[in-house]
Amino acid sequence: MQHIGPERMDDLALGAAVLGTGGGGDPHIGKLTAIAAMRQHGPVQMIEMSDLKDDDLVVSAAMMGAPTVMLEKLPRGDEIVGAFEGLQTYLGKKITAVTPIEAGGLNSTTPFIVAAVLGLPLLDADGMGRAFPELQMVSPTMYGISATPMAIGDEKGNSAILNTCDNAWTERIARTMTIQMGGVAFIAIYSMSGAQARQSLIAGSVSLSIRLGAAIHAARREKRDPIAALLDITGGRRLFSGKIMDVQRRTERGFARGEAVFRGLGDDEGHTLVIRFQNENLIALRDDEPVATVPDLITVLDAESGEPITTESLRFGFRVVVVGMPCAPAWRTAAGLALVGPKVFGYDVEFRPL
Amino acid sequence: MQHIGPERMDDLALGAAVLGTGGGGDPHIGKLTAIAAMRQHGPVQMIEMSDLKDDDLVVSAAMMGAPTVMLEKLPRGDEIVGAFEGLQTYLGKKITAVTPIEAGGLNSTTPFIVAAVLGLPLLDADGMGRAFPELQMVSPTMYGISATPMAIGDEKGNSAILNTCDNAWTERIARTMTIQMGGVAFIAIYSMSGAQARQSLIAGSVSLSIRLGAAIHAARREKRDPIAALLDITGGRRLFSGKIMDVQRRTERGFARGEAVFRGLGDDEGHTLVIRFQNENLIALRDDEPVATVPDLITVLDAESGEPITTESLRFGFRVVVVGMPCAPAWRTAAGLALVGPKVFGYDVEFRPL
Repeated sequence: MQHIGPERMDDLALGAAVLGTGGGGDPHIGKLTAIAAMRQHGPVQMIEMSDLKDDDLVVSAAMMGAPTVMLEKLPRGDEIVGAFEGLQTYLGKKITAVTPIEAGGLNSTTPFIVAAVLGLPLLDADGMGRAFPELQMVSPTMYGISATPMAIGDEKGNSAILNTCDNAWTERIARTMTIQMGGVAFIAIYSMSGAQARQSLIAGSVSLSIRLGAAIHAARREKRDPIAALLDITGGRRLFSGKIMDVQRRTERGFARGEAVFRGLGDDEGHTLVIRFQNENLIALRDDEPVATVPDLITVLDAESGEPITTESLRFGFRVVVVGMPCAPAWRTAAGLALVGPKVFGYDVEFRPL
Repeated sequence: MQHIGPERMDDLALGAAVLGTGGGGDPHIGKLTAIAAMRQHGPVQMIEMSDLKDDDLVVSAAMMGAPTVMLEKLPRGDEIVGAFEGLQTYLGKKITAVTPIEAGGLNSTTPFIVAAVLGLPLLDADGMGRAFPELQMVSPTMYGISATPMAIGDEKGNSAILNTCDNAWTERIARTMTIQMGGVAFIAIYSMSGAQARQSLIAGSVSLSIRLGAAIHAARREKRDPIAALLDITGGRRLFSGKIMDVQRRTERGFARGEAVFRGLGDDEGHTLVIRFQNENLIALRDDEPVATVPDLITVLDAESGEPITTESLRFGFRVVVVGMPCAPAWRTAAGLALVGPKVFGYDVEFRPL
């Protein structure tokens, strides 16, 4: 158990953006809102899986929608607390811990807002060990844990408590509601017991994000290579060095979809890399051959600073390094690949672990 | 106060289909489900506005969606009861009466299912005195009564409790949920006190429907003109006699939209009538000149039997009489026309009362 204060949010946001594989929205927005909540309500107590009692009630808090829209619709902070409290009222039972559902830009810091405002402990875990674009793409789905009842709300005062027949239906219905709500919604989802959380969630994602961010920051201060520091912790490797030549991006059915084309530099001179994304980076093709796919992590980093670049921030001319990092072991099982493997996203490619 | 049994459902369904102005779905489906519920649970007690206590809790039960889809997705009957009970649980207070929200095919009989199964009295009223395509188009909206909290569910087990910032948002969000749910959803909506119901609902719509259906049935039996019998009760008039020449119909954004073209017969020989609809008939143009528009009622009837023809049943070659009937006085006010006048549906036409 440890206290996480505003001074750790820089590391957390940076590390989570690396794990966010281009998705999860701009980490700075979420960070600033979380810092404001901590300044007002005090630091957040972070607990580990082993601190959970079997009958604890654990709930995830997140933002849902296209990161391209999140850039333009800044959250006030109370919308997510409203969704969380709405679900608690519906459940008729006190929620005892909040957990991130993904390690990504905004959604790594969003749960800190809830934890700070409501004085709840935050669980050092998440449901992905990275970011994925759809609600059902979390490890609890593999354990038969229902995404619903979930609460969903917007900044205008519209809200709902949703119950669905399975988690794919949760995604389907909540996604259209998010689109109607203006492209971004605030959700409280995946309520589960402490025992279920221990069984199904991916442990240590928050502390890993903080460690990762701290290592990059330290490398920058000490003039070492921040990307080497990052790969050292994640066990990943460089996939490509190059320059962004073209980005196509569209907000489609509530997602930011598109692709980026990179022209090689240095050792990769004369080669081309293409990354396709749906909020998150899904597949990297070097000279048309896949070199990394979901569920492994693909992250684009600024070549100098090691700063991760989200899919909505990719711009012509950026000099970047693309890295691949191994996903959580749960995703490499048959059940994991059936939920988040390349075929799920429409790529007729076998998953080859990095 | 009177008891309504299965033997009155034929009259009710027929009369409500006349007031349904082409919308509300096939009256036979709803009728059969209501009759089955009454056979199992006994007749329904119908109460009048004056029977309501101020602190009664009145809720509407209805189906939402495109009638074209309702034809293909038969309700079991328990879905609507589930939505109703879901709302009651959320409200935390016993609902004491159920009311139709519209007088239309399916939605005139849907509330009878709830009333029969749950043993609740049914209020002789509705929110339109006819059928309209959108949720906010009801007289309670003019009195500032919120459509939400509302319950919405489908036959697969998906459901939600929705709260919105206004009734137009209720329509917007519930409509996309309905589309995701397969084009038809079951809703419990417009919960209000007995005092609010007395102030805002349109009184006597159920008994008017029964009276209207009984008059048409009697005229048929006695070989009198059923259309004359109908116009006698509603104060309406014949707009056109003719034959259906063309029907264009599409299911679009959750509605059945389109238009029908009629070639005149008899006195109308040489003339053409066009009716445009969105679930319900909205405007009738005789030789391109509007002769009736919302909120007044436009209904297409089989020329022989006086059977109303819903928009999804219009077919080439049918010989029909088109009638216009005056709407409830509330709709002819400025507030009423702002909610359901021709301009709301995109027709740049002044409303001229029939």
